[in-house]
Amino acid sequence: MFVLVISGSDVSKIPGVSIAGLNPEVIPYTAPADADLLLWGKPHVIDAIPVDPQGHPTPAIITHAACCEAGFPILIVRSGTYLPPVVPYIEMNVEPGQDPQTNQAVSKVELLVEKSKSLGQILGKSSKKIVIAESLPGGTTTAYLILKALGYNGMVSSASPVNPVKLKEQIWENSAQRIGIKPGGLSGDPMKAIRELGDPMQATVFGMVTGVLEETDIILAGGTQMLAVAALLRHAGYNKPLLVATTTYVIRDKFAHFLDLARQISVEIYSAPLDFSQSPYPGLSDYEKGYVKEGVGAGGAIWYAEQLGVTPDRVIRKTEQLYHAMIKKN
Amino acid sequence: MFVLVISGSDVSKIPGVSIAGLNPEVIPYTAPADADLLLWGKPHVIDAIPVDPQGHPTPAIITHAACCEAGFPILIVRSGTYLPPVVPYIEMNVEPGQDPQTNQAVSKVELLVEKSKSLGQILGKSSKKIVIAESLPGGTTTAYLILKALGYNGMVSSASPVNPVKLKEQIWENSAQRIGIKPGGLSGDPMKAIRELGDPMQATVFGMVTGVLEETDIILAGGTQMLAVAALLRHAGYNKPLLVATTTYVIRDKFAHFLDLARQISVEIYSAPLDFSQSPYPGLSDYEKGYVKEGVGAGGAIWYAEQLGVTPDRVIRKTEQLYHAMIKKN
Repeated sequence: MFVLVISGSDVSKIPGVSIAGLNPEVIPYTAPADADLLLWGKPHVIDAIPVDPQGHPTPAIITHAACCEAGFPILIVRSGTYLPPVVPYIEMNVEPGQDPQTNQAVSKVELLVEKSKSLGQILGKSSKKIVIAESLPGGTTTAYLILKALGYNGMVSSASPVNPVKLKEQIWENSAQRIGIKPGGLSGDPMKAIRELGDPMQATVFGMVTGVLEETDIILAGGTQMLAVAALLRHAGYNKPLLVATTTYVIRDKFAHFLDLARQISVEIYSAPLDFSQSPYPGLSDYEKGYVKEGVGAGGAIWYAEQLGVTPDRVIRKTEQLYHAMIKKN
Repeated sequence: MFVLVISGSDVSKIPGVSIAGLNPEVIPYTAPADADLLLWGKPHVIDAIPVDPQGHPTPAIITHAACCEAGFPILIVRSGTYLPPVVPYIEMNVEPGQDPQTNQAVSKVELLVEKSKSLGQILGKSSKKIVIAESLPGGTTTAYLILKALGYNGMVSSASPVNPVKLKEQIWENSAQRIGIKPGGLSGDPMKAIRELGDPMQATVFGMVTGVLEETDIILAGGTQMLAVAALLRHAGYNKPLLVATTTYVIRDKFAHFLDLARQISVEIYSAPLDFSQSPYPGLSDYEKGYVKEGVGAGGAIWYAEQLGVTPDRVIRKTEQLYHAMIKKN
């Protein structure tokens, strides 16, 4: 089963944090639109495919391509988006995360984790593998806050070639000051880290993983956002093997320290061999320049498709087809 | 996978229709409380186990017992309840059904069926068997309207020893008059039947079944409410085998024509051999007198437990234990 956790956080509204932030009215639609695209082939909550300011399409197009070719089932979990998708989804009934510089980030985090644990237990009983992905604008920033608070030394990735590193560091400074901690100050209290500095997606995936039975494999589909979730799990005593499936673009990101962080957190890595270098479409070939890179479980979807006998090449070709149809329509 | 579709309809507010109706403030909580009970062992949306006016506990206690013993996964689908449960659930984003005597019953029925079909497709990909149950006060009445409109001749069951048959017949007369049809007048248009006379649960289960792939077995867990859904499917051209799993109490109900309707609709039947005759608790032994009878997939849960090697006797004993604990607590 492929589970996409869609979420929201006021961190996405901080100028410069999220690529979606350059067009703030679009932010509430991004994650729900990704959900619609995965299940129904195109957004219904809004009549447009989510793109970054330069027009690069959401990585949901890759995940959708993988699903078209490999046929795996996808469930959507809504954990604090500003708007719901049109497609059916599991409702966790939480608010979007708040800006940790000024407020507690995730309220009622214990109940959310409890519900998520239940959900993980239910899904784990009927699936041998669960790939868990996310769509959350601003999520690499909250990931950075978590990693810093737990004591990790490394920078997260981002969805553009130029990572707003200084801004993320400043947001850390302000947030850490609000709650009075230094780096590593919450290494013994992952729940408090989520509550004060995190986002609802982290609480949800964290909870789901703890609820899943031994016999089911968990694959965290994402880049540094999923490393942050893995770190929270490790600090909560979760010792089982964890696989983080991401894309080659994240591994290659010079601004980030993905491999080092992964080693520190003790997770295995899968790097999806995406290659759009031959694409006639700048929207896709720009992924090679560091635009977008990952998201909506693109890397995990490639992993899952491979398990089902579908090569990355087939997914890449399908992505091109879908993108061509998308541009032609517009 | 066991799926409980919780729903709501203004039909439940018609005096005399639903056993829950004698205490109208309770109606909005009944189905969500059943969902909480199944997943978390007790209601959280309200601090009380749903009981009928004489104090008989919700049949969710039987379903819960079956799940405790057999360990099957349960998903909740919220399709038009007045309130959400506290546990996680799949949100279909529809209003409760309206009273067909005065209004169109289910608005935007095509979209609901479409979403439900998607959901069926997703769940069907990851489960070899799907048991679909319902919790909907007033649902035997809307079931009656559907069966009548499709041309079936027989009375539905009810949750008390005395079935308000005349009232259900009057509701049919008034509703049929509103839309200008005679019995059988919508036999060729099941979607219109749901839209004008039905409830959101019917649309949801109908949609889910049509979305499920060939290889997955569907078990409709319920009494005459599920016969109505089966009838809608038949009239929409659904020819695959259908199993309706109910309880012996429904089969034995002298006011209803379960067996004849099942034969007319061409469904197979499973009759869960429940037996509370030896129970020291009137709350349970009264099931033998025709109180409650079925609901929340009690019959289907017994069927599912049997598939997993758990005898009906074990479920009955577990139900007694749970009920004992419940009374002791109060």
